[in-house]
Amino acid sequence: MLIVMQSHATEEQIRNVCARIESLGLKAHPIPGSLRTAIGITGNKGAVDLAVLETLPGVVECIPVSKPYKLVSRDAKEEDTILRIPAPAGDLVIGGDKIALIAGPCAVESEAQIMAVAEPLAKAGVKLFRGGAFKPRTSPYSFQGHGEAGLKILAKVRERFGMAIITEAIDNESLDLVEKYADVIQIGARNMQNFSLLKRAGRARKPVMLKRGMSATLDEFLMAAEYILSEGNYQVMLCERGVRTFADHSRNTLDLSIIPAVKQRSHLPILADPSHGTGLRRNVLPLSRAAIAAGADGLMIEVHHDPGQALSDGIQSILPGEFVQLAEEVRQIAAVLRRTVN
Amino acid sequence: MLIVMQSHATEEQIRNVCARIESLGLKAHPIPGSLRTAIGITGNKGAVDLAVLETLPGVVECIPVSKPYKLVSRDAKEEDTILRIPAPAGDLVIGGDKIALIAGPCAVESEAQIMAVAEPLAKAGVKLFRGGAFKPRTSPYSFQGHGEAGLKILAKVRERFGMAIITEAIDNESLDLVEKYADVIQIGARNMQNFSLLKRAGRARKPVMLKRGMSATLDEFLMAAEYILSEGNYQVMLCERGVRTFADHSRNTLDLSIIPAVKQRSHLPILADPSHGTGLRRNVLPLSRAAIAAGADGLMIEVHHDPGQALSDGIQSILPGEFVQLAEEVRQIAAVLRRTVN
Amino acid sequence: MLIVMQSHATEEQIRNVCARIESLGLKAHPIPGSLRTAIGITGNKGAVDLAVLETLPGVVECIPVSKPYKLVSRDAKEEDTILRIPAPAGDLVIGGDKIALIAGPCAVESEAQIMAVAEPLAKAGVKLFRGGAFKPRTSPYSFQGHGEAGLKILAKVRERFGMAIITEAIDNESLDLVEKYADVIQIGARNMQNFSLLKRAGRARKPVMLKRGMSATLDEFLMAAEYILSEGNYQVMLCERGVRTFADHSRNTLDLSIIPAVKQRSHLPILADPSHGTGLRRNVLPLSRAAIAAGADGLMIEVHHDPGQALSDGIQSILPGEFVQLAEEVRQIAAVLRRTVN
Amino acid sequence: MLIVMQSHATEEQIRNVCARIESLGLKAHPIPGSLRTAIGITGNKGAVDLAVLETLPGVVECIPVSKPYKLVSRDAKEEDTILRIPAPAGDLVIGGDKIALIAGPCAVESEAQIMAVAEPLAKAGVKLFRGGAFKPRTSPYSFQGHGEAGLKILAKVRERFGMAIITEAIDNESLDLVEKYADVIQIGARNMQNFSLLKRAGRARKPVMLKRGMSATLDEFLMAAEYILSEGNYQVMLCERGVRTFADHSRNTLDLSIIPAVKQRSHLPILADPSHGTGLRRNVLPLSRAAIAAGADGLMIEVHHDPGQALSDGIQSILPGEFVQLAEEVRQIAAVLRRTVN
Repeated sequence: MLIVMQSHATEEQIRNVCARIESLGLKAHPIPGSLRTAIGITGNKGAVDLAVLETLPGVVECIPVSKPYKLVSRDAKEEDTILRIPAPAGDLVIGGDKIALIAGPCAVESEAQIMAVAEPLAKAGVKLFRGGAFKPRTSPYSFQGHGEAGLKILAKVRERFGMAIITEAIDNESLDLVEKYADVIQIGARNMQNFSLLKRAGRARKPVMLKRGMSATLDEFLMAAEYILSEGNYQVMLCERGVRTFADHSRNTLDLSIIPAVKQRSHLPILADPSHGTGLRRNVLPLSRAAIAAGADGLMIEVHHDPGQALSDGIQSILPGEFVQLAEEVRQIAAVLRRTVN
Repeated sequence: MLIVMQSHATEEQIRNVCARIESLGLKAHPIPGSLRTAIGITGNKGAVDLAVLETLPGVVECIPVSKPYKLVSRDAKEEDTILRIPAPAGDLVIGGDKIALIAGPCAVESEAQIMAVAEPLAKAGVKLFRGGAFKPRTSPYSFQGHGEAGLKILAKVRERFGMAIITEAIDNESLDLVEKYADVIQIGARNMQNFSLLKRAGRARKPVMLKRGMSATLDEFLMAAEYILSEGNYQVMLCERGVRTFADHSRNTLDLSIIPAVKQRSHLPILADPSHGTGLRRNVLPLSRAAIAAGADGLMIEVHHDPGQALSDGIQSILPGEFVQLAEEVRQIAAVLRRTVN
Repeated sequence: MLIVMQSHATEEQIRNVCARIESLGLKAHPIPGSLRTAIGITGNKGAVDLAVLETLPGVVECIPVSKPYKLVSRDAKEEDTILRIPAPAGDLVIGGDKIALIAGPCAVESEAQIMAVAEPLAKAGVKLFRGGAFKPRTSPYSFQGHGEAGLKILAKVRERFGMAIITEAIDNESLDLVEKYADVIQIGARNMQNFSLLKRAGRARKPVMLKRGMSATLDEFLMAAEYILSEGNYQVMLCERGVRTFADHSRNTLDLSIIPAVKQRSHLPILADPSHGTGLRRNVLPLSRAAIAAGADGLMIEVHHDPGQALSDGIQSILPGEFVQLAEEVRQIAAVLRRTVN
Repeated sequence: MLIVMQSHATEEQIRNVCARIESLGLKAHPIPGSLRTAIGITGNKGAVDLAVLETLPGVVECIPVSKPYKLVSRDAKEEDTILRIPAPAGDLVIGGDKIALIAGPCAVESEAQIMAVAEPLAKAGVKLFRGGAFKPRTSPYSFQGHGEAGLKILAKVRERFGMAIITEAIDNESLDLVEKYADVIQIGARNMQNFSLLKRAGRARKPVMLKRGMSATLDEFLMAAEYILSEGNYQVMLCERGVRTFADHSRNTLDLSIIPAVKQRSHLPILADPSHGTGLRRNVLPLSRAAIAAGADGLMIEVHHDPGQALSDGIQSILPGEFVQLAEEVRQIAAVLRRTVN
């Protein structure tokens, strides 16, 4: 933390601030400048909320210096975390030089629908299949998902096609079920700061995909992941899915610059979801290519065999045939970065 | 829903879109313009997700027309909802021509701290006391609240000073406890779209304060309230607490224009929280006055007897004495709007 | 400037950064912490762009400490700047304990229209009349203003009703004309960073109202004003007119928290424009009251005698009779803050 | 335009709105729905500002349907606009299946600096060289550019290395000079809605690059281009350079989803500027790849031979050698999209 004093702060005000810092068990380092004095603080282990020093007489501003995350940081672990998701038809590796493709419909609507989507995706080489059984919907009158019945349908997909399963948990009860039936637990954007759910996910024995909240800063995103790791679950991957801005030509603004920013600060893998990120079918292909070109460790794509009849998000779902083209273009772009799709 | 066709859309494409609409059991109303044709749709009860029509050949855009909320809307109930919060020392009325002042510390830190804050607030006429026992914190290493022990301290405040209690629930488990100990259940900004929690609050038999999410649109905010009403709990008040923008001179950007906007569309009361809304003690007074001047039905203010020692949010907490001044200025501004502080 | 080093930065990297700082003629102050070292820099007069130090090995981040503005700062001048706008029927004072009301139509449409609006406003006590002769419009096909002919009509308003005139300049040519005909030169939000125009306004001998850009931070806003002062014109007032956010219930989001923030950092007066700030007639009254309650030094309000026929911004213009009510409520709220409308 | 009536609007209110529409010379198309009536309007040529209908009794909302731009629209011209920039060492093609690389330093600092950057870029095959002689800077105390002397240095680059020149104009005076010395006129983000400058650029006989404003919507961006075309200059290319959001891990948020969105609506080429888009040297390479993968028609990259000594934007400038790597990776990604770098 750095305290910036007013240019006309008195010597006494500066001494007072230093005394207050020392009284908290910390060390004050005054730096007199030509215009004003700044005071560095060291020794803070995080227990003291220093922002309150901003209210002392003569203080202009408190500037945080240390980043608050620990376990997710490259300071704690320099090399990339690489996740291995076991699947009957072949494990999926996420991180390092491998690119992961996750695909499937927005929601589990029926067994027939799921199988109709799963078959071509399995043939296209997809190893991790997505589909929501618990759906967080803006309206209470929209389809809310089939719950455990949906999870059972997903389990049949694994059995029949050998793909691993990822699906969203929206509260502690559904997380118990998701942990039982699925291979990867997804925490959605709207729950990125549902700390109770994050702690529960941290006690799960399955890997977790954490999606970025709609207006989460990089620090908040990494701190949300820190909640999971701090409970003992180190199998975490992040996913950028678009943030809320003033822009109205896409449902959200996919923020690809967070990919290199995460990679600089954290060892965790980061994927992108261009389906939610753009909200429009015709943008899924260009933004998928872009995410891989920016360095994403994988993609999560909504695919539906009949988007016009989808119960949710039909407008951003692509057809299985379009997914095959996407996978091929992604494979070629990954090769430019000397990475391979697995 | 209104479908806008491309200017060079063919007659056949227009017929196709109309046929598709009719096949969904809805009625199509083509409106040929000089440049392009638009197609109105009527008869939709909300079961069909029409956005997918945007992907049909010749279509430029689908524009939603009807608002998705029902029970919270003035269409459903024209007159203002007025809540009455029973309290031993006198009930609090929220809505109509009454202004409600809610005050207390960010968190329940200890019985001594709570009593030190509660006493002057009770003397100042506060009827609804706030204080968090379950704290949603960005960092897992920050103080997370005392849980049920904190709720018991709050119950003593009601007993000793006759004030009603409002406190936050962060998951289904804590909501059970909050419902038991408190008079009003608070749902925080980070949980505004925790639909599982909203449904549980909708089954509670205590009034609910729902805070606006950090990047929630007006429609999303009202839809979140709709979740609570749709489960049977009509005792809901809303609270604006600042949204996330690029602006960096305040912690959040308090969006007071949502107050008249809510009042136009919904019968629910709406309050403002200038403490979280600005994040700075010196801004609490001016923005409190502004919120009341904009038509807010009340304020929620963080007060601490020793902000420099607060375990959380000390930087935005005002002193009990400052609260007295705030209450007086608010009373005078309310009078300009022919309203009274109760 | 504060340089934050990586936690595993080597001694040599730290020495390198210090050497580089000293080679720029500045002084380095290393502050070794438990986790990492930070390095304070003093002696920078602004000539050196230190951000580039962020690219040195071992550096995590460069954090600017000093604010870049000088003349607009309270460091340069502690007491409030108070402007006096001379007008035949009585001067207008802006700043200090006086509240200023500026009113008039969006655009000068015709002499008849201007006189129809000016007459009731003069009667209501308005001393500074607004009306655009040069209109920055999003579309090249929208009404662009009457130019000099419009300025001549405004000059007649001053002659007939004794009010001073404020009108917008959009380039150096129109600024020459505005300076000749009007009493206050307005720089619009879209031109807040048109530095060529700001410099020209800084050489004008009339006061300037500078509106906040649609996505300007507080620092950028004050730096834009600094451009005007640095050319010698100290007669500057600021105006908050709403910023661009994701919120879609108002045309812009009026950011009233900037009012106390400006007052803390700068001696310049700051007004609010709730007409552009909200973009909706029904929100002008509540947000006008709120702006004054937040501490604004005045309001700029769009008034039209027949908004349904206005060539621009009819949707946010209020009627002269509504303005009278607004002025009365504002007067009462100003009294709560011990200020008077002049 | 579509008018949405309140659910309890009376027959008379609906008749009134229709009568008002017809009185404006337009045609009203009422669409009675189960909940409420909507009224379509046709025949509007843009002269009438219909938003004001929102203030009529019984009206909830006015929803614009037609897009306001004409000449930039694919409705006006279906095939892609392809620009050809003549240069002594070989023309540059922008648009169609060609990718254009524009590179050079942020500012012209000295002849020696410019030549030191230009030589390796010319060798790397760059055909269009950038460098600012007129610099829009946030602070009046920052380096403002060398003006005409800088333009003369750029002219020497063309002479010596055969590259064409692009440089920014910031007002009408500088545009005269830029038109005289350069091959492409750049309009910067801060001037995107400087309509006076846009009109002047529309009368220039050189191609124009228009950068997106920091908070410009897609419609505003295209309307700004429409200003240039409407004055007769059809040689326009667009450039995405990042928008302002809450995100603080990059200087701006590069919004790559606007690339396919522009391509759907407009025939104009669109490039990306990942240097300003991210503001950090280490992000320039990944975001450059991403922009091309998303379908951009080219890149504008800041390159400096000694970024640590740059007078501006050193922090986001890459070295000539890094540019060579960037160009090679971009070439490979362009090939995946069946495009070639020229």
